[in-house]
Amino acid sequence: MDKYKVIEVKESIFADNDKDADRLREQLKEQKTYLLNLMSSPGSGKTTTLKAVLGKLKDEMNVGVMEADIDSDVDAATMQELGVKTIQLHTGGMCHLDADMTRQGINEFGTEGLDLVVLENVGNLVCPAEFDTGAVKSIMILSVPEGHDKPLKYPLIFQVCDALIINKIDVLPYFDFDMEKVEEYAHMRNPKLKIFPISAKTGEGVDALCDWLRNEVKEWQK
Amino acid sequence: MDKYKVIEVKESIFADNDKDADRLREQLKEQKTYLLNLMSSPGSGKTTTLKAVLGKLKDEMNVGVMEADIDSDVDAATMQELGVKTIQLHTGGMCHLDADMTRQGINEFGTEGLDLVVLENVGNLVCPAEFDTGAVKSIMILSVPEGHDKPLKYPLIFQVCDALIINKIDVLPYFDFDMEKVEEYAHMRNPKLKIFPISAKTGEGVDALCDWLRNEVKEWQK
Repeated sequence: MDKYKVIEVKESIFADNDKDADRLREQLKEQKTYLLNLMSSPGSGKTTTLKAVLGKLKDEMNVGVMEADIDSDVDAATMQELGVKTIQLHTGGMCHLDADMTRQGINEFGTEGLDLVVLENVGNLVCPAEFDTGAVKSIMILSVPEGHDKPLKYPLIFQVCDALIINKIDVLPYFDFDMEKVEEYAHMRNPKLKIFPISAKTGEGVDALCDWLRNEVKEWQK
Repeated sequence: MDKYKVIEVKESIFADNDKDADRLREQLKEQKTYLLNLMSSPGSGKTTTLKAVLGKLKDEMNVGVMEADIDSDVDAATMQELGVKTIQLHTGGMCHLDADMTRQGINEFGTEGLDLVVLENVGNLVCPAEFDTGAVKSIMILSVPEGHDKPLKYPLIFQVCDALIINKIDVLPYFDFDMEKVEEYAHMRNPKLKIFPISAKTGEGVDALCDWLRNEVKEWQK
């Protein structure tokens, strides 16, 4: 496998991000590629979750990962080791990706033939939520050590996501984290939000997440 | 104690944030108030750390807290319960505070007579690091569950901070967190960075942090 590319994405020159996002989704629909936008705080376990999920899905469909980072290749190297087609996007200090930056990544990556591409967005609960990346769906991770009050403090990201992964449930005994409360607060922000409690480390709950994603890809490719 | 005020801070109309920041520092020097800018990811334990530190310092000096949040009063209510003078700043969706927003907070707060004010910045490792708030020093928290690779992935915040708190050391046995590596990576970004490993929950390491802060305030008031 060739080493992953690293590209420097530039801020969009287009004013209308929502139109850009719609155009990108049309392109993805045509080529039957499902793009999933994955958002979270730094350190919630995005990369470990991707390893767990894509480790299971990569033998049944063609998968790829776009790693967006301000300035490192740590995660791209990890995904490459897993044998998943990977590209590293450097945002040059930018705190989020917009649809045009995502399109630059998609076009450089060469996603024809890929069934599923996951965009690992910059670790940040605020800014990435403000921009439609052009992905088919958005999903976020909240990890147990971060606390169950996060839907109260970062409302927008819970509103714009289709699914919420609650990661690191293996350490629930060591933290004051109330699973009922987090579900209540999250559904207060977004009643349709699907919730998947998992431990990416032990594998608990990962099958349910894979089932959902497998079905999402199938529906998109119809 | 009166209930804390909640104010909506507005984005600065001034172009030169660095000059604003210097002006605010001059004002603070004159009134002998030490302003500490506290930054971290969501969920790293900023509020719990403040409870542990200010719980110790509040009987020997006049302390206050400015809680910056996008849209909630959760942390302000917690600090108020501790008996610490508190103001809540709402950023209206903004991912950071600049010097003028901080000044609006300081002036509304009425910080005359306060020796130490802590600004709890928006939970975010990216954007707050880009703006000098006018604080005397900046400090950040990285918590054990976030992982030791964060100085590689979020370089700027480690560069601009004067001290790094490594929080949640009580859960070290349950995470793959390498204390030597995090110190090596952090010092690679900033050789002068002071590092305080603590558990805000159990109180371990908090005294050393209080000693540093007490001395900082003393030097500022000379």
